[in-house]
Amino acid sequence: MTSSAAPLTYDQAGVNYDLIDPLKITAQRAAAATASHLAGHGFSEVKASRGESAYVVDVGPFYIASIVECLGTKTLVADEMATLTGKSYFAGIAQDTIAMAVNDLITVGATPLVVQAYWAAGGSDWFGDAQRAQALVAGWKAACDTCQVAWGGGETPALAGIVEDGRIDLAASCTGLINPKERLSVGDQLGPGDAIVLLASSGIHANGLSLARKLAERLPQGYLTEIEPGLTYGEALLAPTALYSPVTEALWKAGIAPHYCANITGHGWRKLLRHPSALTYRIHTVPPKTAVLAFIQQQAGQDDREAYSTLNMGAGFAIFVKAEDAERTAQISRDCGIAAWVAGTVEAGEKQLLIEPLGVRFSEDDLHLR
Amino acid sequence: MTSSAAPLTYDQAGVNYDLIDPLKITAQRAAAATASHLAGHGFSEVKASRGESAYVVDVGPFYIASIVECLGTKTLVADEMATLTGKSYFAGIAQDTIAMAVNDLITVGATPLVVQAYWAAGGSDWFGDAQRAQALVAGWKAACDTCQVAWGGGETPALAGIVEDGRIDLAASCTGLINPKERLSVGDQLGPGDAIVLLASSGIHANGLSLARKLAERLPQGYLTEIEPGLTYGEALLAPTALYSPVTEALWKAGIAPHYCANITGHGWRKLLRHPSALTYRIHTVPPKTAVLAFIQQQAGQDDREAYSTLNMGAGFAIFVKAEDAERTAQISRDCGIAAWVAGTVEAGEKQLLIEPLGVRFSEDDLHLR
Repeated sequence: MTSSAAPLTYDQAGVNYDLIDPLKITAQRAAAATASHLAGHGFSEVKASRGESAYVVDVGPFYIASIVECLGTKTLVADEMATLTGKSYFAGIAQDTIAMAVNDLITVGATPLVVQAYWAAGGSDWFGDAQRAQALVAGWKAACDTCQVAWGGGETPALAGIVEDGRIDLAASCTGLINPKERLSVGDQLGPGDAIVLLASSGIHANGLSLARKLAERLPQGYLTEIEPGLTYGEALLAPTALYSPVTEALWKAGIAPHYCANITGHGWRKLLRHPSALTYRIHTVPPKTAVLAFIQQQAGQDDREAYSTLNMGAGFAIFVKAEDAERTAQISRDCGIAAWVAGTVEAGEKQLLIEPLGVRFSEDDLHLR
Repeated sequence: MTSSAAPLTYDQAGVNYDLIDPLKITAQRAAAATASHLAGHGFSEVKASRGESAYVVDVGPFYIASIVECLGTKTLVADEMATLTGKSYFAGIAQDTIAMAVNDLITVGATPLVVQAYWAAGGSDWFGDAQRAQALVAGWKAACDTCQVAWGGGETPALAGIVEDGRIDLAASCTGLINPKERLSVGDQLGPGDAIVLLASSGIHANGLSLARKLAERLPQGYLTEIEPGLTYGEALLAPTALYSPVTEALWKAGIAPHYCANITGHGWRKLLRHPSALTYRIHTVPPKTAVLAFIQQQAGQDDREAYSTLNMGAGFAIFVKAEDAERTAQISRDCGIAAWVAGTVEAGEKQLLIEPLGVRFSEDDLHLR
């Protein structure tokens, strides 16, 4: 195992949020101004869902939530590993793509109902590799089965000149219902005394891949570097993203309605600060890092503050519940096959996240999503 | 104006449906098998919507329709024209993208409620061109205003290595309601005696662009070729796609419930054969070709059969209504600012489309979408 010469930051890995974010803010303002159109149809938006992971509309008997989410660049790892090993990793990639949409949709309390596939290839010949294409279909269906959603249809355009030759741009849209309406969890009940339950990630999921890929270039054996006996870096990166909707559905059946949820994706644990309320989030128990995340942190020379501000570091989803529901929430997640920890508490105080075992603090200034 | 040496087919323009379609069929089968998951939530799919332009779920008080749609390669024309003229065409491109989703969603009788933006750039710097990015935002909002939909949010990923540098992959997802449920138009009432009303297109819309771009390469002045005085080929191609949801909403308010609708996109007028029923569609009135479509047909050396099998040829949307509603349907469209023609009739008989004024016939074998 090689140790790296210089630290590697996310900016160096080619993602510049300073250029994306001003556009995002302009777009968010324009988008907010369109909400009034819903009144013409007899409906209204749930304003608190603006800036949340999914957009929610009140249609009377229930709320409708919808979303579109991009996989990102994880397919580049799958493509490279396919060349190195001859295997297809697109079943897992399909799960990753659906997870991006479903895990966001459920944060607002929605039951995902319909997923649409967006598979934009660099050319028609992408679909000519039958093994890869069939793996994508099979993995997509399996993830729908796990999440109990209907796969409604989708798009399979060939976009030569826009998508690079031999590559595919994958995304998923998802529509769901918040039903009954008490399931809505946009944070209005979030407050001091709530517990923070963290659900295990399966690895890097689909965020931080630009960094992970840069790192592979530095390793003499690249993706085939063993990060533990029998497990290569590439295989570990390609562990499919955990699907959390079975947990949120099981919670509801058990009578637990989360006050808030955060899908820990881009911006890592800073996502725990997502809700606009001024509250202090104190973490007393830090879940174990998965092997691949520990490896990335070490190889990139990241301190804990940087690692936890970028990667999920072993916790893929956070559920904020009444303190008395915390242990049961964690147990229900475990019963669904996903490790979970009662990891912290919500307190009155300035907006900050304190990861006490690591001595790391993030404040409001560290996360601007709205 | 140059006349071309050899005819240009769609296959030569780089889109090979033979490679895409087998995968599509496998995916459609896998997708159909997931419908049973809806029962676990107390809902069910509208089976007739499988293979239609939008997927429909019965959630009790109304139906929910959802969709994701890709713009395609029209941005490549916008990029090239921006280089040639210094203007930004991305406001129109935004309308095109929303039109792809909205015009499909309304075919099943849905009122579009929420649009999500999918803007996947080749790198963060795409968003650094403020003029272009602001045009995209402004055009997106304006199209939402026209369609009276709420812009819920979206994704603006930077996908270096997947999307080509300097390019953007645009798509939109849309969710709507069919409310009241009588508005459902998946063709179960389509039958002999119905009239076919055709709504004018604004130009090429966003289908056939691969062919249109190939053609530009052949023209000595390329996109700056004048197709009529003061109108360049490039500008004409970039006329934004008509938005038809104001028409379908106005129809409902006037008490007209279409029996079926077809969005005339890829496969051109063959889309009139979309519904699986064995019916004959006889066209007696052919709308005027827009200038740009006439130019493409002439330059590509296409006969009518080929042109009408690929391009919209002046008709962007077809509405199948009771004969007695036909004239009023056309008038309501005109009142919305969109020219319309009572163009034909539905008859008992083998599945075929007869474009009588042109002597063109398409049969079931000419269109395989399911």
